[in-house]
Amino acid sequence: MATTSQAARGPNVRVQLVQMTVIPGQPEINTAAILCALDAARKVCADVVVFPEMAIPGYLIGDGWERDAFLRECEACGERLREASDGIIIVFGNVAMDWARCNEDGRVRKYNALFVAQDRRFIGPQNGPYPFVIKILQPNYRAFDESRYFYDLRKLALESGRPLEEMIAPVAAGRWTLGCVVCEDAWDENYSVSPLRMLTQQPVDLLINISCSPFTFNKNQKRGAIFSAHAAALGKPLVYVNNVGIQNDGKTICIFDGSSSVYDGAGGCVSLPAFEEGVLTQEIPLNGAAFGVSVELKDEGIGEIYRALLYGVRAFLAQCEISRVIVGVSGGIDSAVVAALFSRLLDREQLLLANLPGPFTSPTTVALARRLAGDLRCYYTELPIGAGVSLTKTQVDGLEITSRDGALKTRLQLTDFMVENVQARDRSARVLAALAAAFGGVFTCNANKAETTVGYATLYGDLAGFLAPIADLWKGEVYQLARYLNEQVFQREVIPQGCFDLAPSAELSPAQDVDQGKGDPLIYPYHDRLFASWVERWVQTTPEEILEWYQAGDLEKQLSYEGKVADIFPDARSFVADLERWWKQYQGMGVVKRVQAPPILAVKRRTFGFDHRESQMTPWFSRRYQELKALILQGSL
Amino acid sequence: MATTSQAARGPNVRVQLVQMTVIPGQPEINTAAILCALDAARKVCADVVVFPEMAIPGYLIGDGWERDAFLRECEACGERLREASDGIIIVFGNVAMDWARCNEDGRVRKYNALFVAQDRRFIGPQNGPYPFVIKILQPNYRAFDESRYFYDLRKLALESGRPLEEMIAPVAAGRWTLGCVVCEDAWDENYSVSPLRMLTQQPVDLLINISCSPFTFNKNQKRGAIFSAHAAALGKPLVYVNNVGIQNDGKTICIFDGSSSVYDGAGGCVSLPAFEEGVLTQEIPLNGAAFGVSVELKDEGIGEIYRALLYGVRAFLAQCEISRVIVGVSGGIDSAVVAALFSRLLDREQLLLANLPGPFTSPTTVALARRLAGDLRCYYTELPIGAGVSLTKTQVDGLEITSRDGALKTRLQLTDFMVENVQARDRSARVLAALAAAFGGVFTCNANKAETTVGYATLYGDLAGFLAPIADLWKGEVYQLARYLNEQVFQREVIPQGCFDLAPSAELSPAQDVDQGKGDPLIYPYHDRLFASWVERWVQTTPEEILEWYQAGDLEKQLSYEGKVADIFPDARSFVADLERWWKQYQGMGVVKRVQAPPILAVKRRTFGFDHRESQMTPWFSRRYQELKALILQGSL
Repeated sequence: MATTSQAARGPNVRVQLVQMTVIPGQPEINTAAILCALDAARKVCADVVVFPEMAIPGYLIGDGWERDAFLRECEACGERLREASDGIIIVFGNVAMDWARCNEDGRVRKYNALFVAQDRRFIGPQNGPYPFVIKILQPNYRAFDESRYFYDLRKLALESGRPLEEMIAPVAAGRWTLGCVVCEDAWDENYSVSPLRMLTQQPVDLLINISCSPFTFNKNQKRGAIFSAHAAALGKPLVYVNNVGIQNDGKTICIFDGSSSVYDGAGGCVSLPAFEEGVLTQEIPLNGAAFGVSVELKDEGIGEIYRALLYGVRAFLAQCEISRVIVGVSGGIDSAVVAALFSRLLDREQLLLANLPGPFTSPTTVALARRLAGDLRCYYTELPIGAGVSLTKTQVDGLEITSRDGALKTRLQLTDFMVENVQARDRSARVLAALAAAFGGVFTCNANKAETTVGYATLYGDLAGFLAPIADLWKGEVYQLARYLNEQVFQREVIPQGCFDLAPSAELSPAQDVDQGKGDPLIYPYHDRLFASWVERWVQTTPEEILEWYQAGDLEKQLSYEGKVADIFPDARSFVADLERWWKQYQGMGVVKRVQAPPILAVKRRTFGFDHRESQMTPWFSRRYQELKALILQGSL
Repeated sequence: MATTSQAARGPNVRVQLVQMTVIPGQPEINTAAILCALDAARKVCADVVVFPEMAIPGYLIGDGWERDAFLRECEACGERLREASDGIIIVFGNVAMDWARCNEDGRVRKYNALFVAQDRRFIGPQNGPYPFVIKILQPNYRAFDESRYFYDLRKLALESGRPLEEMIAPVAAGRWTLGCVVCEDAWDENYSVSPLRMLTQQPVDLLINISCSPFTFNKNQKRGAIFSAHAAALGKPLVYVNNVGIQNDGKTICIFDGSSSVYDGAGGCVSLPAFEEGVLTQEIPLNGAAFGVSVELKDEGIGEIYRALLYGVRAFLAQCEISRVIVGVSGGIDSAVVAALFSRLLDREQLLLANLPGPFTSPTTVALARRLAGDLRCYYTELPIGAGVSLTKTQVDGLEITSRDGALKTRLQLTDFMVENVQARDRSARVLAALAAAFGGVFTCNANKAETTVGYATLYGDLAGFLAPIADLWKGEVYQLARYLNEQVFQREVIPQGCFDLAPSAELSPAQDVDQGKGDPLIYPYHDRLFASWVERWVQTTPEEILEWYQAGDLEKQLSYEGKVADIFPDARSFVADLERWWKQYQGMGVVKRVQAPPILAVKRRTFGFDHRESQMTPWFSRRYQELKALILQGSL
């Protein structure tokens, strides 16, 4: 099949972008949706209809790739699309199989592939070994494990003794020559290979990228910039199709925004709305004429996170078939935000707020919880945990234990600190879990990202729940989201002002008395920024860098902290003590707790769970850190 | 540096293998241990001293590779080894940096590398781009994520436009030419590249493989066979050095057995004992003479698992600085085995067994728990959970909830089934957690692999704990281990015979009355084998294959089930109902629960957690399964 001559090309190609929900692990259901969308594309006389990457199997399916029965079914579904391709060009993503070869783990050979079907035939790249396009660049960062499952084109080139350039070629489908790539292939800035550039060494009418690319705060701007730049640099229109829906790795729930677009090479673009299914029928001129509108992608701030969370939680509830939710509301800001969020998704009778006052709970916070429940108009109950906590104290504190032979004897003591955790567990594992069962639903984990970082939460206590919807937000962002909910979403004060004014507190001891302005040991405006430097930077900082910045006097600037560190820590000794305390917690008990923590909705570039892989290890301080510390502490004497 | 001529070579080389504990994430500590072992090697006049893969940084450190301060420290530690190499050849594993280039994720370039240091110089492969040997084959299966962190030699060859063969070369160190590879490079059966074979295209005196290769049941035989075969086929002695200790991925704790060996190419080998630190000084003739002894590696069965578990638990307790442990003992076999295991590691006053009888607990099981505690001579206590369960029932059952505006009103009901979970949570999250705190220790999760597979356990209940030491063992293996403990380890009946005779039961309802022989809905001898086919096979089976085998009449053979399936399920309908019930549980609530379950000690080729990655998805049945099912059920009418 030779490259179509310029003369034979029509001036335009009509492309239908299908921004569909891909259900991971359900090839039959996805295929039915694709066939349905195909009918619609025929009705608008589309020449080419484009579906997302891995539109048939889904993408984040864990080790489900290791089931041959599943792979056979995906292959059979792909065949059905081939058979349905009379008179239309279908571009879709699927796993492609070579049953005669194996992957490097000894399992059957699998490729992450793009298929082009037309007139009941699959059309592969010119001179390629297979009738499909193989993904070249494989992401192995964040929540992605692509090399775990798929053989890439670079390995195939080595295996077959052919130069890679020879294996990267456009697909000639009917009157058009399509330059097809899969997702990461367009994000080539750090690779030694640039698939799009290599493809356009040959005549190409239209570039197509199919993706399964999750939402990340502020990523859409980067995506727009990268794809616009490709279209402009290569002088070709570029079609980008991404799915919507959610897919997860167990611990990390990725939200897919879609944002499918056509870029015209002149800086213009036409896009589908984010976070919803949709189709876009686009007439694309192949003579280089511009057709898009110039859009300036701007930082939408917390509103973008709100939309992502709302969409993600809704999808997760639907997937788990959950229709009733309990939120333990303490009167604090975190649980108030979670309650307000769920009230946007559930009818009032599907939502129950429960305040569970303990021995150190102030009437102030109970009143705030009540007021919130009134504002949200949902079910509300108050169930004190005093009796449960007392029972545990009675049973355990002072308990004499012995060995059966009587040789060992001792008496156990439950300290006040231990009783703090007893309260938290009584609330969640005893009361909330039972309430949730009786209400016919589940209960939430209201932890924020700062608490999650340092494990400032009790395992089987406030760290329990079916989902941690705001555990990817720093405390400051939780306040922002609360304000956004009141001002933009509800346009009234559903989250009482008192929740904003209150000192953040767990109310588990007299030292955490909110009425005296006491509370958490975390100074959130500072610790949010400190922890973010450990967790969210692409290159993670450690106490070594923090001390270096502290010594150089530009820690505030480096952390984008708006206050003054000296206002919090009067001397180097207290600064260092705080730094070490939280670093040890982050690296020590923080990890222990996160291993058993609920799934988190991912909205940032770095979410605890599968996106941020951790080992339980002894906390590490570098030799350079120890030297700096000695120097600084000496200086401060 | 030209290859040393045959004449200049000495007849022998004295090699010191150092089977050390590598502490993940602690370069300074590991380097100190290496320097200490180096002194010892000098004392025995070793020519070459060999340390494991990643001996400086450790291997399973999660995303700790993304901290530049850590990488700089590893590099500096490597420099110290270089400086200590006067008059000796040091071979060790470390991360190797190229600060001027980047990995494909945009972070700094990192290689998993083998360093050869001699006379204060690093010696790289002849004509290589760096003064170190780069790992060629990267495992991206099981718990390994190598391509997430390290650039491999194949990518480097492509990037630098050189053929791979040219970049694989021996290292000429003093009088010897060493063919050096890292771990997976020797496990080449499924790769298109064979590093050892390529290396021996050139003259080589000695092959060296440094590894960080975790214990897996029955793997040692395979390792012996593969390495012997390499040495024989290539006609060269082969040194294999692996570390001991434990390293983890948070959820999955890998145990390293060491088993470092020298293979002589004539089928003989000299090995260090497994699961302990040690050094081996071996005079290796380079004229092809045999020096090893012929060993037949045999299946050691449950004894091997016992040794691995004991070693792994001991190391985990040490790492976490845990010296006191509570085991909730029900009288059943699982908790009895866990208690017996811990009693081998702790003094009697460090171990507390707690029996927590509930409303449906039989005096039979309490008596067994008591007897076990007597046998183990440790602390024992009985704390009934009746009052806690009653309190929760009183608070929740019949509770009227309303909306604050009074428009909504309903009454909650806590069913008997819900109270089963209330009991389990009361035991663990209320009582055991408080007891553990007061005892100054932690409590264990006693779940086995069958329960873990289908989530037959209560979240925050019996699924809670600091570690699940036997969650990689099927129920049948737990019984085997119990017998092994009595017969081989204790050589007396510490686990009472009654624990073996009892029907496995959670004792949470009258339907689980052990005294009437009632208990779990799992028929362990069959379900163990069924679940193992889903989880532990390299290519995972699904209900489709199970039905196919059932229909073909060879299900028992395929599953290695020793009974008859027809004796359990009188007809196809009940067989299919059971199959679907557990598959749905495995794929549904099983995953939900495992996300929040404790870390597991890995002893099998497939352990839940990081070794077996899972997504929360809607359970999937293939179209072929549905067809088979229709056929079979029709036939059974």
